[in-house]
Amino acid sequence: MKKIKITFIGAGNVATQLALAFKKKGHQIQQIYSRSTLSSEILAKRCNTIYTTNITEIQNDADVYIYAVKDSVLQDLIQAMPICNGLHVHTAGSMPINLFENSQTNYGVFYPFQTFSKNRDINFEKLPLFIEANTEKNSTYLCKIAKNISEEVIFCSSEQRKALHLSGVFACNFTNHMYAIAEELLTQANIPFRLVYPLIAETSSKINDLQPKEAQTGPAVRYDRETIDKHLKALNNLPLEKEIYRLISKNIQRYG
Amino acid sequence: MKKIKITFIGAGNVATQLALAFKKKGHQIQQIYSRSTLSSEILAKRCNTIYTTNITEIQNDADVYIYAVKDSVLQDLIQAMPICNGLHVHTAGSMPINLFENSQTNYGVFYPFQTFSKNRDINFEKLPLFIEANTEKNSTYLCKIAKNISEEVIFCSSEQRKALHLSGVFACNFTNHMYAIAEELLTQANIPFRLVYPLIAETSSKINDLQPKEAQTGPAVRYDRETIDKHLKALNNLPLEKEIYRLISKNIQRYG
Repeated sequence: MKKIKITFIGAGNVATQLALAFKKKGHQIQQIYSRSTLSSEILAKRCNTIYTTNITEIQNDADVYIYAVKDSVLQDLIQAMPICNGLHVHTAGSMPINLFENSQTNYGVFYPFQTFSKNRDINFEKLPLFIEANTEKNSTYLCKIAKNISEEVIFCSSEQRKALHLSGVFACNFTNHMYAIAEELLTQANIPFRLVYPLIAETSSKINDLQPKEAQTGPAVRYDRETIDKHLKALNNLPLEKEIYRLISKNIQRYG
Repeated sequence: MKKIKITFIGAGNVATQLALAFKKKGHQIQQIYSRSTLSSEILAKRCNTIYTTNITEIQNDADVYIYAVKDSVLQDLIQAMPICNGLHVHTAGSMPINLFENSQTNYGVFYPFQTFSKNRDINFEKLPLFIEANTEKNSTYLCKIAKNISEEVIFCSSEQRKALHLSGVFACNFTNHMYAIAEELLTQANIPFRLVYPLIAETSSKINDLQPKEAQTGPAVRYDRETIDKHLKALNNLPLEKEIYRLISKNIQRYG
């Protein structure tokens, strides 16, 4: 597709990774907005573009405006934004498309289903991009834009995206907390956390071949009451972890 | 080290993977025991050796006896086993070394910290092997044996191994259940589970660079009450998952 001009509202991890991905594909990052001078300056420099910390100074001639900001400020920013003819998309998993409906004419959602961290570059090629737009024409256009950076572009309703976002909390945020609990237990036993890396890597790669239910191992799925009781006892000094252990074990058995 | 003779008590996933790993390094698998004719026959064939389904028929001249069986039958098998001068080791994370103390002279534990599945070959080279033995001499010998198949051999007490095993339940079994819940939610929303693979892969590889606490993202760690409430509401038809969501979110906030 021809080179387009993209403006970013936000300069955090998501905005940074997306801006760099589009820039790499030859598109022009036209402007960066962030309320933080430092963040917007850093990203603007990396994208060889200009920035502003005043939302009303956003130029109105970009082709696409990508809003990658915290959910809590998204609505306010949309309302403060000048009317611009380009396509406005937010990147929030749990926010509906209609946030834009009284503010702009062309709008949609562009939700990359991934966890973004500072200083970790993301491979976009296989990254699922879930998109939605307010008209057929905008859908087609957004799809074309998205395919620039990923092979995996999926149309999805705001309702589906809610479920998607929730599933990501389990698959990513809660999984990471399981790692955090493992680290806590290993630290208490004076064992370096890095020794659990191979187990974690195998657990996550296993599901490429097996459905999670088939891949389930451990005392709960075996109904190994003796081991479960030992573990619960070992968690006596960590009551919340103990309750988490009990509930997850129960649910594993329910899933069978 | 010189070629040794190893007998396996058990013919399941762990026994299979270990037997193949030792065979590959040139050691001789002397005999396989399993109560199941089919399992023992299959593994014996793959190891080019003989098998028995009668524990009393185990030959007494192997150098090492590796017990890789379910925790629930381990003690009975140890008691039924003929006295043999070789080194006897079990592979159970949550079982103490002293199971052997009234049965054999030379014994220990050989605990591979990994999840083993049928038909998935494990790379042993970096796999942490936690070992323990009843004498200094047996420790040294067991360490030498273990180093044949892995660079990562760690001495660890039965007490430490308990914590290790428990940490593995969180890092592997419970993590896999988080995937199972994600799958359930995606299926309900008519979204293919495979679209969550990149998120899962990134989540697990992130902790090679960041401690889990630093890597934590999501509504809980942001204290994003609005999103948490939306998610809890969306889980109304799944009360156990809802409670798991609530507790893990609470614990994420406690870890900060």
